[in-house]
Amino acid sequence: MVVLVRPRNPLNIGAAARAMSNFGARHLRLVNPYAVAYREARSAVGASAVLENAREFDSVADAVADCSLVAGTTAVRNRVLQNPLRSLNDESASTIRAALKSGQVALLFGSERIGLTNKDFTHCHWLLNIPTHEQNISMNLGQAVAVCLFGLSRNVADKTIPKEAEPASSGEVEKITQGLYEALKVSGYVKPGNDAVSEKKVRRLLLRFNLQALDAKVLLGMVRQIVWKLRQEGKN
Amino acid sequence: MVVLVRPRNPLNIGAAARAMSNFGARHLRLVNPYAVAYREARSAVGASAVLENAREFDSVADAVADCSLVAGTTAVRNRVLQNPLRSLNDESASTIRAALKSGQVALLFGSERIGLTNKDFTHCHWLLNIPTHEQNISMNLGQAVAVCLFGLSRNVADKTIPKEAEPASSGEVEKITQGLYEALKVSGYVKPGNDAVSEKKVRRLLLRFNLQALDAKVLLGMVRQIVWKLRQEGKN
Repeated sequence: MVVLVRPRNPLNIGAAARAMSNFGARHLRLVNPYAVAYREARSAVGASAVLENAREFDSVADAVADCSLVAGTTAVRNRVLQNPLRSLNDESASTIRAALKSGQVALLFGSERIGLTNKDFTHCHWLLNIPTHEQNISMNLGQAVAVCLFGLSRNVADKTIPKEAEPASSGEVEKITQGLYEALKVSGYVKPGNDAVSEKKVRRLLLRFNLQALDAKVLLGMVRQIVWKLRQEGKN
Repeated sequence: MVVLVRPRNPLNIGAAARAMSNFGARHLRLVNPYAVAYREARSAVGASAVLENAREFDSVADAVADCSLVAGTTAVRNRVLQNPLRSLNDESASTIRAALKSGQVALLFGSERIGLTNKDFTHCHWLLNIPTHEQNISMNLGQAVAVCLFGLSRNVADKTIPKEAEPASSGEVEKITQGLYEALKVSGYVKPGNDAVSEKKVRRLLLRFNLQALDAKVLLGMVRQIVWKLRQEGKN
């Protein structure tokens, strides 16, 4: 699915929907779209089924909660990236198509002006970059969506990819994030006023584990038991 | 070079120019553009060098006169084509890149409404089709230009090959295993006499995370702090 984060231009929302329809992607989600833009895009002549069925969310976390792979798009320059970075090519396309066999995949696109923020990135397993010319790396939103979906749909009939274990959804990872962060606070690993270990860092750490669904369940149980115990003791 | 034949929308002209700049294509030619559209596109904020240097022609013949390969883009449906038809893929991209070494190549794009006409096709060596979903084969002009240029530039300058992070050693994973297992015992997750959660299972779980060296260090610190706190509390 395509997730547009804070899009501001109705033409771009419409263009993204059109590209989705061109390349057979159906699920469009919007995180805090500029209200006027969203309304205009939806009422545009020829607004597609993709737009009609689009869903709106208040946060990236909610928008990707049921996804097992979240890839954020970025133009890269001048940024210290803490996520793994992949180029849009046959290899990354295969990875995404393989993930589609066992779960939902979200492709995140940021706002026209500033793209995705570092906070948005913390919800991403990895980042996807469209290889562009050095002199102009900033793509139009609608065009970036079209190029990504084309890139991902290429050679669809290629070699069969082995099915991997069912991956954990972002919602599950988020629960573990919350639990572990709680344990770190209660245990004194995270100190008040010192945000060297932020919730974001914990989330990124956990996303890098590429948790399987079953493992996520086990890990959540462990973390919750530890939190419970830490709190019990705290009461004495 | 990109040749837009009878474009009518200034936004599309601008979008085509922007995509060209993204993918390092410099020469834009327009055949009978709708005058108002062309003027608007050129005067738009941020109009690029590509637009400034664009050339205008009265006919497709004139626009492609100096080219040794002319490929016309088409959505194909319901048309009897007399030109060879190729799909946008690595093979056609290679053909075009090879042609670029010995001469000029023109990529023709038709107007938003009807695309290229049969007469336009007579100027083309062959036709190029972007593989789209059956249900919506008609792409936005600016998006089609972006996708074609991406398709042709692929693998040319694949600059972002990710460097694999250094993996954690087994020794490091083992330390985390011991720490986490300790935390699970102290917190009551592992119950005496019940080996449903054995040390082996914890180790296997951690190994499945494919920990990076840096992450392992962080995780070990977290686990140790939690164990320390759990033990502290136990003393009270």
